[in-house]
This record gives sequence, C-alpha cells and structure tokens, in this order.
Amino acid sequence: MKKNKVNPSTLSGFMELLPKEELKFNKIKQVLSEVYELYGFYPLDTPILEKSEVLLAKAGGETEKQIYRFFKGDTDITMRFDLTVPLAKYVAKNYNNLVFPFKRYQIGKVHRGERAQKGRFREFYQADIDIIGDNELNIINDAEIISIIYNCFNKLGLTDFTIRLNNRKILNGLFNMLKLEDKVADVMRIVDKIEKISKDDFIKELQKNNVSEQQCDEILKFISIKGNSEEIIESLKTFCGKNEMFDQGVKELGLVYKYVVDFNVPQENYKIDLSIARGLDYYTGTVYETTFNKHPEIGSICSGGRYDNLAEYYTDKKLPGVGISIGLSRLFYILNEMNYITDVNNGPADVLIIPMTDDLSYAINISGKLRNKGIRTQIYFEDKKIKNKISFANRTNIIFALFLGEDEITSQKVTVKNLESGEQLTLELDHAISLIKDQVNSIDKQKIINIENKKADI
Amino acid sequence: MKKNKVNPSTLSGFMELLPKEELKFNKIKQVLSEVYELYGFYPLDTPILEKSEVLLAKAGGETEKQIYRFFKGDTDITMRFDLTVPLAKYVAKNYNNLVFPFKRYQIGKVHRGERAQKGRFREFYQADIDIIGDNELNIINDAEIISIIYNCFNKLGLTDFTIRLNNRKILNGLFNMLKLEDKVADVMRIVDKIEKISKDDFIKELQKNNVSEQQCDEILKFISIKGNSEEIIESLKTFCGKNEMFDQGVKELGLVYKYVVDFNVPQENYKIDLSIARGLDYYTGTVYETTFNKHPEIGSICSGGRYDNLAEYYTDKKLPGVGISIGLSRLFYILNEMNYITDVNNGPADVLIIPMTDDLSYAINISGKLRNKGIRTQIYFEDKKIKNKISFANRTNIIFALFLGEDEITSQKVTVKNLESGEQLTLELDHAISLIKDQVNSIDKQKIINIENKKADI
Repeated sequence: MKKNKVNPSTLSGFMELLPKEELKFNKIKQVLSEVYELYGFYPLDTPILEKSEVLLAKAGGETEKQIYRFFKGDTDITMRFDLTVPLAKYVAKNYNNLVFPFKRYQIGKVHRGERAQKGRFREFYQADIDIIGDNELNIINDAEIISIIYNCFNKLGLTDFTIRLNNRKILNGLFNMLKLEDKVADVMRIVDKIEKISKDDFIKELQKNNVSEQQCDEILKFISIKGNSEEIIESLKTFCGKNEMFDQGVKELGLVYKYVVDFNVPQENYKIDLSIARGLDYYTGTVYETTFNKHPEIGSICSGGRYDNLAEYYTDKKLPGVGISIGLSRLFYILNEMNYITDVNNGPADVLIIPMTDDLSYAINISGKLRNKGIRTQIYFEDKKIKNKISFANRTNIIFALFLGEDEITSQKVTVKNLESGEQLTLELDHAISLIKDQVNSIDKQKIINIENKKADI
Repeated sequence: MKKNKVNPSTLSGFMELLPKEELKFNKIKQVLSEVYELYGFYPLDTPILEKSEVLLAKAGGETEKQIYRFFKGDTDITMRFDLTVPLAKYVAKNYNNLVFPFKRYQIGKVHRGERAQKGRFREFYQADIDIIGDNELNIINDAEIISIIYNCFNKLGLTDFTIRLNNRKILNGLFNMLKLEDKVADVMRIVDKIEKISKDDFIKELQKNNVSEQQCDEILKFISIKGNSEEIIESLKTFCGKNEMFDQGVKELGLVYKYVVDFNVPQENYKIDLSIARGLDYYTGTVYETTFNKHPEIGSICSGGRYDNLAEYYTDKKLPGVGISIGLSRLFYILNEMNYITDVNNGPADVLIIPMTDDLSYAINISGKLRNKGIRTQIYFEDKKIKNKISFANRTNIIFALFLGEDEITSQKVTVKNLESGEQLTLELDHAISLIKDQVNSIDKQKIINIENKKADI
C-alpha cells in the first residue's frame, strides 16, 4: 500500500459482516421482529447515547468499568450498555403517555468495552422484549413469554432446545427457611454458577460466605430435585406451609406451568429447573434460561425473568414487568461458526437481468414489471462478456438469470434460467413471473437455521 | 418527585418517539428497505464506532468540530457522522471479497454534535444507497437511481415532488470556459446556495471571490436557462465543442435523461435543473436533489450523485460510484409535524382478545390460531372491567376486539367487533379470520404518507 493511505480497518471486537452474512443476520432480525409483532409488541428505538447520570443511576462497579463514557462540551454522556435501563427511563419519562400493560420489543446495538475475545463483541445487538404493568401485571404474561421464546427459535428453525424455568421466590423462600436471609444475593449468585463449576467448588464458595455444611447440603439437595416438571411441582408442595414467599413462588410456578400447556408449547421444549437462579438481583419471580440440548457449552441463548419494579431509580410508580433478552450478535456468531445457518436465498436479488443488446430499453421495462410483482430484480448494466455477467449471478447467489436478446425483444418473451438446476426456458413474461415467484416463495418458507442438515461438521 | 430519584430525561437533540409515532417511523423504514431490496441492494450494517484515523482520513474542519470523539484506553474513537465514509472503509477493506458492481443500502444512525434546533438532531437516521463499480460504472446506474428515488417516495405516498438533476461536469466545464478553473470549489459552493439567497447576495458572494461582473452574468445566464428538460438539453448543445469536460457532461446528462424515460418515471416527477451543484466536492458527474413542490422551504429531502473515487484515502483501487441519502429523522419530523403521516393501522396488534371468563385456555388457544394466520394478536390478561379492556384497544388503535365468553366457548365461536365501524358479529373462527385478514390487508395497502387527505391543517 502506498504511503498516505490509511489502513481501512475496523475496531477490534466490532462485528462487521460480509454481504452474504449480513443477509443472514438480517433475516434472523426479521424473523424475531415478526414473532414479537405477532404478540402485539410495539417496536421501540431509544438513543444510543444517554446522560451518564440517567444510565448509571443504578449501575454497579462492573458496569462502570465496561462502559463507553465521555464528555461532549459539558455534557457527561454514556453509550447504552443494555436495553433495559433505557426502557426504564423511557417508561418513567413517558408514563402519562403510555397505555399499560406496555409491550415493547427493541433490537438494537449496545456497547461494552469488555476485553475482546472470540464470540464476544464490544458492539453487539440485543433483542429484548418486555411487558410492563402499571402497579400490577398478571402472572399469565410469564407463561406467554415462554410461548414467545419457543416461537422465536422454532421459526428460526431450531427444534432441539429447552426453555428452563424457575421462580426466584422459591429460592429466596428456601434461603429464608435455612436462615440465610442476610446472604441471599451472594448465595443466589453462587447457585447461578452451579452448571459451570464443580460440586466441590460450589460448596467451597458457599462456605466462604459462611454457609454451614448442613445449609450447603440442604441447598444442594433442593436444587437437585429431579423428575419431570409435574413431579417437581409435587415435590415442591411438600416444602410448603413454612414460608410465605416460598409458597407464593410455588403457586406462581404452578400457574405459569399450567398456562404454558394452553399455549401449545411442545413439552420437550420447556422444563422446570430449580437450579436456575439468574445472577441479576432485580429478578423477583419467574426466571428463564434457554439452552441448546446438543450444545450446553454455549450457555443460555435467551434469558430473562419477572421483576417487581422496572424504574425505581426514576419514579415512585410501581412498574412490575417480565422480559427476556437474546444476545443476537453472539448467537449469530456461534451458529454461523458451526455452519448452522443456511444459505437460503441469500442473494441480493431473485433475478439478474442480462441484456444481450446494446439498447437496454426492453431490459429496463421488464425489470419494472418484475419489481411490481415483488420480485427483487437487478439488471447487469456493465459492458462485460456474457460469461462475466453469469458469473456475477453465481457469485452473488442470485437464483434466476433472465436473458434478453434480439429474439426475446422481437417475440416479446423472456429466456429464464434457473442457475441452480440449469433449467432454461423461453416464456411469456407472465409465465416466467409465476415460475420465479413459486420458486422464491418456496425458498422463503425454508428456515434460516438448519441444524439437522448443516453443510459441514463442526 | 422524591429525592434520590434521577430525572428520566433524554439528551437534547436526540429523537425518542412515543409508541404510535415509532410505529409510523418503522413503517417508513420498512417501505424504504423494501424498495431498495427490490432493486438488488444488499443490506449493510457497519459499526457505530470507528477508529478516528479511519473516519477522519479525509474530514475537513467543519466535520471535526461536530463529531463525537473520545478515547477508550489508548484507542482514539469516533462515532460515525455519515454512512459514506464507513462504506468507503468497508469496500476498501473487503475489496477482494466483494462482487462488483456492489450495491448496498444502509439505514442507520449517525451522530453529529451540532447545535440542537427544531428538526435538527444530533443522533439521526440516514437511509443511503450506493452502487460501487470496480474501475468503471455504467452511466445507466445514474438513471436507475432516479427510478429508485421515485419509487421510494411514491410507495410512501408522496406524489407532488420533483427530482432535479444536473451534471457537475457541465458546471465544471462552464467554469473552465469562463477561466474560473482556480475557483471551481468556491464558485460551486456559491451556486449551490442560489435558491437560498437573493440574486444580489449571490453576485456579491461571487465577486468577493474575485469573479468579474461579466463572469457573474455568464454564470447567472447559464444556470437560469429555462424550458423543459428536452429544451435545456438542446440549449446545452449550443455551448458544446469548446470544452471537453462540458461536452462529456452534456452527453452523460443526455443519456441519463434518455434512460429515465425507459424506467417509466412520470415526467412531472423529474427535471433537469442547471443550478443544482451540491456543495460536497467529491461529486464529479450526475447530481440529484429532490424537493416537495408545495414545500420548497424544506429544501432537498433526498440528494446525492456520482463520484469518481469512493475510497481514495484507503486504497489505490479506483472505485467510482453513485448514491443518494435521505435524512430520515428530519424528513419524518417535518412530515409528522405537518400531519402528513397517517394513523393507518398503527396499533401494536390487529386484534385484542378480551376474555370474559376466569379460565383463559380458550382465549390462549384462539390467539395461537390467529397468530398462525399472521394476525397480530394480543390477549388482555389483566383483571379489569370490560370497559377498561375495550378502552385499552381504543387507546392503542387496535381495530378488532374479540370477545370470548361462556357462550363463545360452548359454541366454539368468537364474537368479533370492528372498533372503528362498531359492527359486531358472532362467527366461526375461520370466518372471523377471513374478515379480519381482509380488513387488515386493505389497510396495509394504504400508504403511510397522505398529503392530500391529511387530518389537520398546518
């Protein structure tokens, strides 16, 4: 590279996809948006930048270290590091203009200056939904969330996943029964790690927090309660009557479980798991995690839960809610690395028109008619050899080439070639349009993620 | 507000819409994306943050003042202030992995720390398309851009707009003929202001730059050439033969004009205007501006042009291109203030299910069936009076209420009420679904912008 040129590089830890990958990512965003919209969620879009005092009203030390914070003139500014704090601000700020329950989804970029590593990004998309009530919010919403998680992953093409649910009141109640009420936050944080650390380390960590051997045993015994979900609920009932919070948790979990059945979520896709704690201290009821059965090492791909008070740092209004978040950039990165994301119709167009005459009027005219029928159409305008023109379609994954030469102009027909099958036909335009639309529609019905028939092995 | 609460405010100059407005904005983004995709553009998504040395490789003083720039550790970071510089970086960086001509669209947020004022934002969306060639790019692409601009605004619902086009080579050639070659940039900048300043000020500004009275007269005479586009092209031909660049510009403009006719863009929506200069110095050929005929005071709502070299700061490769940009946030703000944006189906759902029994199984079951048919469906779960439930639908603009009581459960029917017309029917579910889909489809066909039948006067 000659001097005076700047190296065109991207910041490390910032995802920037090639066109074909971007098409896949875009498709995933679209599928999620469609599912959220089917359930009546508003799209929402809050600023990338907020006042630091607003964004950091609650934040703890860990967040502080990771954030992008700077001054512009006298203004202390922070880039949003999640979509929950901006939502809290939004709901508190616009309380009088919102209708509750307020359901919103937001798929947006957030920034965290973490140490960059494989599959971890400093700028990444989160896909969040939340349902916010005014003072109260029916527990059935917690069941609906499971149905939404199921539909999101199912419509993306995943089948082999499990939504695991629990209720924080049960764990809180248990810790109270064990006289651990002054250590709830610490114990919860350790329980949250149960799948990632050994049993010995688990006990060691608890004991470091002054949990006695007997208390450890009780916790371990409890979170290891086995059986299907019904059996777990029955087991839980045997602990009832000793602690009000515990009993309330068991009741809520039972209701959520009852309604999930009505939502028609297949039984193999969800289960009660008493070890699910979620580290974050603002969850107060139902909690969710979602894992790939074949790839537990990935960890949870969709997590969330119920909280009592969304916006307590901004308002005295009590705003309970329930929500989930998908770390979209990381999920995409992992699935794509594993070759689980298909190349389904990921050309920038459905049809490439290849004009074979100098005058392009006929080609331009046909392109307008195809687009009017919703067919994504590009004309190859450049003055190259036919070989290069077809190569353009092949290299960009465009399925159909439409050849327009003197013969086609005279007969007012088109020659359409399916570049996948090699089939080539000269047809009336209307017939060609039907042929193309049928093929494109059938491809569009295929799902973007395909774990069963993936092209390569990991 | 009690003490210890942080005021939930948003940074000044940062657009944050209420849910109903956000739905409208979202719809506009969708329409634009659809049009761009119909023409074969890839979606692209580059980072919000870039290395300062990359983003500011070219930038002049004005940009430097407006940018958000900060350090994170040792890294000098700048927030992108447009979508063109990131595109240049992207194409230079990924040159070997791209297929040319490379067509991409990007609808994304950019940041400029300008002084906030009505309708001007510090964080705002741009909607950009560009077609980049490798070493060369056929002039017909410049005509296609006009067709794209037309379709964007037409599909949004606008009719009364004019795409004005010119060619910078013509102006450059003219200035050369007038022996102003050393002042081209300054003169171009002043010509660009012709519509905003008086004729006297125009001459004064030119003279300040040592343009003689006679030269001023020639410039004024030239850019005032009147007539329809054909007549202008004829007039231009009379100047030909004296300057090669001028002649080339006239030829290009003629070709663009010829092909626009093939693209079927209505004649009233475009015209040649020799006063269009575009201030930015990287345009080298065709230039576009788009104005509302009724509201010239808004200025151009979609501008762009042809450039010889996209990425000269990063690479020796010659990458000519043509592109346009819509300042989406500002456009939305202005149209919305003028009540030009309709309330068409801007509820978060098409149907609100209102259960009239304690058990919600039937309601949940029906909701799944509606969603399977693509109907956006929300269930009102909260324990409120019927009045409040219907009020929820009215306040959120949901069109249909579905009442499910004991009678409906027994007969396995649904009672559907159109909340706009007041019509209420008890039907088999399949019939209800047809009724709802027909109505929703017909509403979805309405355009989001409606200037003719706007609700209120400005």
